[in-house]
Amino acid sequence: MLFALDAMGGDNAPAEPCKGAILACRGDGELSVALVGPKDAIIPYLESAPGEARSRISVVEADEVIGMGDNPSASIRSKKNSSLRVAMEMVRAHEAVGCISAGNTGAIVAGGVLVVGRIKGIDRPGLAVPIPSLKKTTLLLDVGATVRCKALNLYQFARMGSIYMRSFAGIENPSVGLFSNGSEEIKGDDAISEAREMLASESAVNFEGFVEGKDIPIGRTDIVVCDGFTGNALLKFGEGIGELVKVAIREEIEGKILPMIGAFFMKPALKKMASRFEYEENGGSPLLGVDGIVVKAHGNSRDRAIAGALHVASAFARIKGTDAIKESLESRA
Amino acid sequence: MLFALDAMGGDNAPAEPCKGAILACRGDGELSVALVGPKDAIIPYLESAPGEARSRISVVEADEVIGMGDNPSASIRSKKNSSLRVAMEMVRAHEAVGCISAGNTGAIVAGGVLVVGRIKGIDRPGLAVPIPSLKKTTLLLDVGATVRCKALNLYQFARMGSIYMRSFAGIENPSVGLFSNGSEEIKGDDAISEAREMLASESAVNFEGFVEGKDIPIGRTDIVVCDGFTGNALLKFGEGIGELVKVAIREEIEGKILPMIGAFFMKPALKKMASRFEYEENGGSPLLGVDGIVVKAHGNSRDRAIAGALHVASAFARIKGTDAIKESLESRA
Repeated sequence: MLFALDAMGGDNAPAEPCKGAILACRGDGELSVALVGPKDAIIPYLESAPGEARSRISVVEADEVIGMGDNPSASIRSKKNSSLRVAMEMVRAHEAVGCISAGNTGAIVAGGVLVVGRIKGIDRPGLAVPIPSLKKTTLLLDVGATVRCKALNLYQFARMGSIYMRSFAGIENPSVGLFSNGSEEIKGDDAISEAREMLASESAVNFEGFVEGKDIPIGRTDIVVCDGFTGNALLKFGEGIGELVKVAIREEIEGKILPMIGAFFMKPALKKMASRFEYEENGGSPLLGVDGIVVKAHGNSRDRAIAGALHVASAFARIKGTDAIKESLESRA
Repeated sequence: MLFALDAMGGDNAPAEPCKGAILACRGDGELSVALVGPKDAIIPYLESAPGEARSRISVVEADEVIGMGDNPSASIRSKKNSSLRVAMEMVRAHEAVGCISAGNTGAIVAGGVLVVGRIKGIDRPGLAVPIPSLKKTTLLLDVGATVRCKALNLYQFARMGSIYMRSFAGIENPSVGLFSNGSEEIKGDDAISEAREMLASESAVNFEGFVEGKDIPIGRTDIVVCDGFTGNALLKFGEGIGELVKVAIREEIEGKILPMIGAFFMKPALKKMASRFEYEENGGSPLLGVDGIVVKAHGNSRDRAIAGALHVASAFARIKGTDAIKESLESRA
């Protein structure tokens, strides 16, 4: 299975995407990766690759780059030879099973819609992020593909998220919570209320009503559905708190002898705990609702995170996730 | 200065509001508190009060209660003899300088608008919560008074928040960030874009543009302005993460000898860190934009948090915060 990897996407491109491709190919003998970007910039990073893995890594030339600050839809339209657009064209042409990028989120979403194309019947795509919670992983979507949502969008996110968690995480009947500003029925706005009614009467979704902010870290439901503005807010706030926790622990112990001794013994435990907040760094976020596999990696991804995103993409391909979403929608169209 | 305290508001009423009133009066010799609620339920809790503090605590009869699940505006209208409504009527009649409640947030906001009344020129009130961030305290508003906001609402929150942080926290020229789903100008929706333009051309506000989720724990600006839906989401998510951190630390160390030794030495440091997430528990949230002092305490407040909310109210009264907001608006009307 060949995946197209945007070698120029993210804060650490092209070094880390290239290293990530090597890491992923070493760990998965069935994986092939096409690194998309300027050949001259990519080739030097492939020298260290072991021969067997190297043989499954190819380079596809693309000499333009979409930057983090570029206007998403304008750049995906105009930069026809950008690494991201070329990677997406490969998916559209079925030359690659899917594509992965740690680049400009908006451009990834715009490219998903404009280049890869939406699944018939899906109004807007949703970017899903697995968030570690107390007892399990909670899938939060949308985290930024669709800033403001109509009821139909939220409803479709719930449908797609359910299929993803069923096929991908093996949860038979994943529970879905609709994010609101409180658990009572009177909460939310018009779109949220309408989505609530749609979901309550949809037998294909194990709907548990409204969830609120504090329910996410607890892991009250397997899936939490919200608009992209809210999901993005929560995701970045969580990341910021993770940073704060680290700095705060350091501040509280620095120069104090007993807490420093304590920290020495607790280090592995604290490290493991802090990693619970490194949401996206642990893997990739699938863009659900597009007609092909598109996985976004965190902008500051290192090789391990890129390899993780490649793993998400290949696992999603193996279970034929896109087809599962299509079939589920057709059966109730 | 007499403040009306809703003795029946919150999860631990009337015990904790009563104890909180005693605690606050013991700590502040200029404070008087009228506990509003059923006399028979309140009096027993006042027996332990030292004579001097007891002499500054009175009881005002009110035999109805607005529950946490009651419809906010319907209950504030119909339950004319509820402890919350009676406390607010005392503010309207200038019998009390301000009122405090740990009860139903929606009813506090509805009562603020319907009973206490809005400041002339203010479209909607904003509930502000001081959030501990890396270097300082960040004032987040709105956290639930106005679920969806027009640009004018966000603009007015920025104005009121600035006055609050200037008068109350003594920050000469507090910086204001407008919450969005990214720091670039193209982010946000129509209301947020419009508010951005209004704030950029407002000399009375030290506006620093958009802030996103991760900027809040870092403390990038003194004030963060958002709609009530988003603020509520962030606040509750932060609380949930605080819980998760506590449980996760416990899980990581339990039964493991070295981490347990470590935790013993680190306990004070960890406790101090965890307290950084107990946002509302540390004090009260002023409802800005109403023509009198209204402070909301967290629903699960214990005596210390109630006393903290009384302290916020009395400090706001001393600096004549409501008048400062009025004057500032008039001078640029």
